[in-house]
Amino acid sequence: MDDCIFCRIVSGDLESDLIYEDDDLVAFRDLNPQAPTHVLLIPRRHVSTVNDLGYADAELIGRLVLAGQRLASEEGIAEEGYRLVLNCNREAGQSVFHLHLHLLGGRRMKWPPG
Amino acid sequence: MDDCIFCRIVSGDLESDLIYEDDDLVAFRDLNPQAPTHVLLIPRRHVSTVNDLGYADAELIGRLVLAGQRLASEEGIAEEGYRLVLNCNREAGQSVFHLHLHLLGGRRMKWPPG
Repeated sequence: MDDCIFCRIVSGDLESDLIYEDDDLVAFRDLNPQAPTHVLLIPRRHVSTVNDLGYADAELIGRLVLAGQRLASEEGIAEEGYRLVLNCNREAGQSVFHLHLHLLGGRRMKWPPG
Repeated sequence: MDDCIFCRIVSGDLESDLIYEDDDLVAFRDLNPQAPTHVLLIPRRHVSTVNDLGYADAELIGRLVLAGQRLASEEGIAEEGYRLVLNCNREAGQSVFHLHLHLLGGRRMKWPPG
């Protein structure tokens, strides 16, 4: 996926403020942060949207959430609180079509969530 | 957890607008909907917050997300788009301390997500 900017971050072709990586996942800071902590967590494998996940991906997506949990702890926001967000398609405002989990915290989050 | 309202929904002790259940998960409509579709998905097992999930729960939490994906499809909002939200602790606005995934759609969601 040469034209996917998140695939280019995964490959190292594009620079990013990387804060975590393992065999399956990569996490980096959002370029347009909406909270004091705003991290994006993505699978290395290109998956366009949540709609493209299958049953076999359950553990992968679960590990994405658990990585968000651990990063929240490392960022020092686990106890005060944090929000995890997945946007799927246009009405949710998904802008990059490589599945990504937003981790936001460090401020009081409002309701509704957008 | 006799004092947990979501455990009471799981047990059938409290009525709810249930739209899905399987051996591990239950989904029902939010009593204070923030979008035309606003569903809560929960594990049957009491888990207070995202912070209380362990490695062994990866598949469970992944299946929670995949159930949200399928319900979005059943609600007719999968293609237009939907947002999935997990709130952890006070600053995220978590109000019921039984882990729950919000599925919101049927309208244009704003940014930031709260």
